[in-house]
Amino acid sequence: MTTVPIAAEQEVGTTVTLLEPGDGTGLVRRTVLPGGLRVVTETMQGVRSVAFGISATTGSRDEDAEHAGAAHFLEHLLFKGTERRSALDISALLDGVGADYNAYTTKEQTTYYAKVLDRDLPLAIDVISDMVANSVVDPAEVETERGVILEEIAMYEDEPADVVDDVFAAHFFKGSPLGRPILGTNDTIRALTRERILEQYRSAYVPSELIVAAAGNLDHDTVVRQVAEAFRDKLDAAGDARPAAPRIGTEPPATNPGTVLVSRDSEQAHLILGREGVKRTDPRWYALRVLSAILGGGMSSRLFQEVREKRGLAYAVHGYTCSYSDTGLFQVYVGCLPDKIDEVLDVCRTELERAAAHGVDAAELARAKGQIRGSWVLGTEGTNARMSRLTSHELGYRRHLSLSEDLALFDAVTSEDVSEVAAEILTRPEALAVVGPYEEGRSFV
Amino acid sequence: MTTVPIAAEQEVGTTVTLLEPGDGTGLVRRTVLPGGLRVVTETMQGVRSVAFGISATTGSRDEDAEHAGAAHFLEHLLFKGTERRSALDISALLDGVGADYNAYTTKEQTTYYAKVLDRDLPLAIDVISDMVANSVVDPAEVETERGVILEEIAMYEDEPADVVDDVFAAHFFKGSPLGRPILGTNDTIRALTRERILEQYRSAYVPSELIVAAAGNLDHDTVVRQVAEAFRDKLDAAGDARPAAPRIGTEPPATNPGTVLVSRDSEQAHLILGREGVKRTDPRWYALRVLSAILGGGMSSRLFQEVREKRGLAYAVHGYTCSYSDTGLFQVYVGCLPDKIDEVLDVCRTELERAAAHGVDAAELARAKGQIRGSWVLGTEGTNARMSRLTSHELGYRRHLSLSEDLALFDAVTSEDVSEVAAEILTRPEALAVVGPYEEGRSFV
Repeated sequence: MTTVPIAAEQEVGTTVTLLEPGDGTGLVRRTVLPGGLRVVTETMQGVRSVAFGISATTGSRDEDAEHAGAAHFLEHLLFKGTERRSALDISALLDGVGADYNAYTTKEQTTYYAKVLDRDLPLAIDVISDMVANSVVDPAEVETERGVILEEIAMYEDEPADVVDDVFAAHFFKGSPLGRPILGTNDTIRALTRERILEQYRSAYVPSELIVAAAGNLDHDTVVRQVAEAFRDKLDAAGDARPAAPRIGTEPPATNPGTVLVSRDSEQAHLILGREGVKRTDPRWYALRVLSAILGGGMSSRLFQEVREKRGLAYAVHGYTCSYSDTGLFQVYVGCLPDKIDEVLDVCRTELERAAAHGVDAAELARAKGQIRGSWVLGTEGTNARMSRLTSHELGYRRHLSLSEDLALFDAVTSEDVSEVAAEILTRPEALAVVGPYEEGRSFV
Repeated sequence: MTTVPIAAEQEVGTTVTLLEPGDGTGLVRRTVLPGGLRVVTETMQGVRSVAFGISATTGSRDEDAEHAGAAHFLEHLLFKGTERRSALDISALLDGVGADYNAYTTKEQTTYYAKVLDRDLPLAIDVISDMVANSVVDPAEVETERGVILEEIAMYEDEPADVVDDVFAAHFFKGSPLGRPILGTNDTIRALTRERILEQYRSAYVPSELIVAAAGNLDHDTVVRQVAEAFRDKLDAAGDARPAAPRIGTEPPATNPGTVLVSRDSEQAHLILGREGVKRTDPRWYALRVLSAILGGGMSSRLFQEVREKRGLAYAVHGYTCSYSDTGLFQVYVGCLPDKIDEVLDVCRTELERAAAHGVDAAELARAKGQIRGSWVLGTEGTNARMSRLTSHELGYRRHLSLSEDLALFDAVTSEDVSEVAAEILTRPEALAVVGPYEEGRSFV
């Protein structure tokens, strides 16, 4: 089993070719500007669009409990005006060229992006860079946007299939920032001051903590020139700063097994059965990803077959992994009618135990590899997906793999690797989160 | 104002080139096989994938009330086995190549599709065609799948932002099949017999009522040969049948204004404010689409600005149109905290009245056209989107427009056209659907 090693630092002021075109990817180049801002691009053939994004290397896990939701609040405010543009100026410019633009905050990053026709790339770079570099965090806009975020929290609360995800994290990572909701809570959002958000903007949105990524029909040097111009003042102020290193986990946060129930008058019960997985740079990552495909990745997966196809117990059933810099999760999600939950849990646990005890067979392994290979290629045909891939490689490893290199790491996984990972991960202590119409204290064993 | 005229019938047994490559689209060809099966393809440059789909020209509005949900039930069953393949065989083959595959039922069509790497196209054609042509509608599978669909209904019920859509349609199109939910109800699903579903399969899935569409890196003649082979028995049995003509609306169904409330203990109120729009072939379609972009299409749209940006009253606010063969809708959706609903309704109604009375200005028109142009091109870069476009053109008009032709129709829209449509459509009787924590009988004026 192997992993993607973190690459050496690139010297400030230089441009490096990271991948030559071929092997399923285009020309990938990186420039590190004086001031520590990285610009990574992929030039793709046969497309008319470009996806352009800027990511801050911080997310909700970098907040303290009192200010939960600050990173996401700030993300909203960056659309609300800069020194030379109002909120309407920003949206009118991007809407006017039909841009697909938005932003999102995760636990470890915050990304702003616009996908546009190639000829509109200069406009996208101008507007997104301006938002990130020159936000005014206007006091009146803070108050209006506070209302929007309280609406967003309420909207999210109305989707029990999403709520169970936060319920699981809050229970399993109790006491760790990883357990807190990205949106914050009604209380923290009501209490956040403009000063606190502005402070976050000033400390987190410095050149060395930002990654610019673009993929599509583009020219690297042209993108770099325009980004350097847009960030000139910030770069000048940053002096000889060097890009932040990839986030490396030290000790994983403590985890908390057991059951948590949020009683709610929903039509279905929504459950997550989960346990600790592996961090992003763990050598077992590729084998666990294959195991997850076999258990819950498609309609032919074991869990889908047993829960839905053979027994009709659910519409949605998935098994999946997620990884952070220092830990990870392997989870199973099922939505089922409330009176089916005991049978669903029994079937799922039996399947996980069977995989832990007996591993996987060669036919399943071959199918999972074919599935990962096909969906990997299909899923990265669009410019948006390539831009995200550049960002996550840069954030995680400072290294960029071609599609072929990435697939070779999957191809190297053996059924012994998968069985070994199954035996280890699937016997870790289980946590169960349930959102559904049950009385407090009901047991789910 | 203009529309896309319905094209003449193509002779059975012939192949016609509908669009030469260029103008933003690839080579588009159509073959009408003896037996009445149409195969339309678009050969795209610079992609490695192909999206392949088969659509039945019937959907939920073709059911009677007693059998509501039959088309969608059948859609599920087609994945459950053919004369030579089990459900697991089907999913294992498609998963094994990483296919992105699924099916969906709308009010007027049912589509089965798989997006695969170009080299896997023969497998996709084989499996999807087999599912559509040779389903066994196995009695045991009918019972298992009944459970899955009851789960799907319950899942949907847990999403109030979706529920309000069905509540609106049921009220506004009361008495018409258009008002019935695509999934059916718990009662109709429990009552549907295998015989009834089988009857629907035999009558609706005949070659003349099916459209095969594929887009991507493909060769038309190769696709046609394989499809003809897969449907050989059905084509032989169909004799000299000719493809079904596009569905043409005669009289639009009656509509029902006024307010409907579904009281539910949700965090947000979810509302749709709607009125009759235009059918697909109405000359005002393009102008209404532009109006809808101006009112509610992006962050710079009037409703987004007034409701969210200036007042922070909602997270999600959209204005949009939808069209059927004989009627259409213009709708506004907002999700807001329950105590904000009166203000939200007031702001929305004021904006709609303002547009009806004063029309739109030149700057907004230019921005809306730019937005439609950009998003049209960006949105059709993928093979899936192109395949869907082929299908909807074939279903609606039997005519295929290049991207340039389509955009020219938008460019021809004047601000007078938009103002005229606004004055007419936005003064039509309003219906309001609300899902939220209100007492029965509360008024929303």
